Amino acid sequence: MTPESPGKIREAGLASTYNHLMQARVHVLTLAVADLERALGFYRDGLGLKSPGVVGTEFSGDSTTPAGAIAMFQLDGGLILALYPRTELAKDANIPFAAPQSCEFSIGHLVDSQAEVDRLLAQAEAAGATLTDQPHDRPWGIYSGYFRDPDGHLWEIIWNPRRESP
Amino acid sequence: MTPESPGKIREAGLASTYNHLMQARVHVLTLAVADLERALGFYRDGLGLKSPGVVGTEFSGDSTTPAGAIAMFQLDGGLILALYPRTELAKDANIPFAAPQSCEFSIGHLVDSQAEVDRLLAQAEAAGATLTDQPHDRPWGIYSGYFRDPDGHLWEIIWNPRRESP
Repeated sequence: MTPESPGKIREAGLASTYNHLMQARVHVLTLAVADLERALGFYRDGLGLKSPGVVGTEFSGDSTTPAGAIAMFQLDGGLILALYPRTELAKDANIPFAAPQSCEFSIGHLVDSQAEVDRLLAQAEAAGATLTDQPHDRPWGIYSGYFRDPDGHLWEIIWNPRRESP
Repeated sequence: MTPESPGKIREAGLASTYNHLMQARVHVLTLAVADLERALGFYRDGLGLKSPGVVGTEFSGDSTTPAGAIAMFQLDGGLILALYPRTELAKDANIPFAAPQSCEFSIGHLVDSQAEVDRLLAQAEAAGATLTDQPHDRPWGIYSGYFRDPDGHLWEIIWNPRRESP
């Protein structure tokens, strides 16, 4: 399993060395949250995503074993959006716990008009999100605005006039 | 557009107040990266995801306007995985620039055997990722391990024996 050298790997393409391409799919996107009920309320009651609610509560965890309580949303296209306590993600992934920050990633959500961008941003704000700016036209031909969810996770709500439908 | 009160909103469900449910879909997942070419190399040459490479270089940006250069991967199911410079995401979203950290989210990727979890983690490590732990069985009946990509973004590679196929 040990390839020859970094230079050789780069030349050949590591994926070729391994004779394997990763399946081009993300199955789950897990957001770290401070308060599971609050986050569930934002996405389910505030934005209207459907979820059976918190599951996995039978796995109680301890100081080193993560607890299992998690909330999940089955999205169109097969992706699961999951909300999981920040403390438990740190334990599960064996990484240091860290305070929230917003500069790691963003989730892009396409809608079918400029008015719908404004409307969804207003809905998110009323549900507890923070808008980072007024929505506006971007140099690459889209109209969009960002919100931060109650845990600081960034969503960009986008209208791309060159796109037929979302 | 202004709902009555937080209590009333909570009771009625804000989504109902707005008479609108957000479409249950994530269209784009954008990862903030320090070096676009390095990140592209990791995902394309290291893991084998297909991408046309860096696009949008015609949008050069300035101290306040984000540059457009971005790398994208069209995934199965319709999701686009995008790599975008951390500095430009901060400008585009109008948020403070922040140093990388790994406790915000994780990307879950399902494979069809325990051996495949180990193999993909080894492939990621050889491509420049850092494993956070040995993969192992979790209390909720999966076998998984996490890696951090070159920018610190967490991926969990999962085998769920109760699932027919990924």
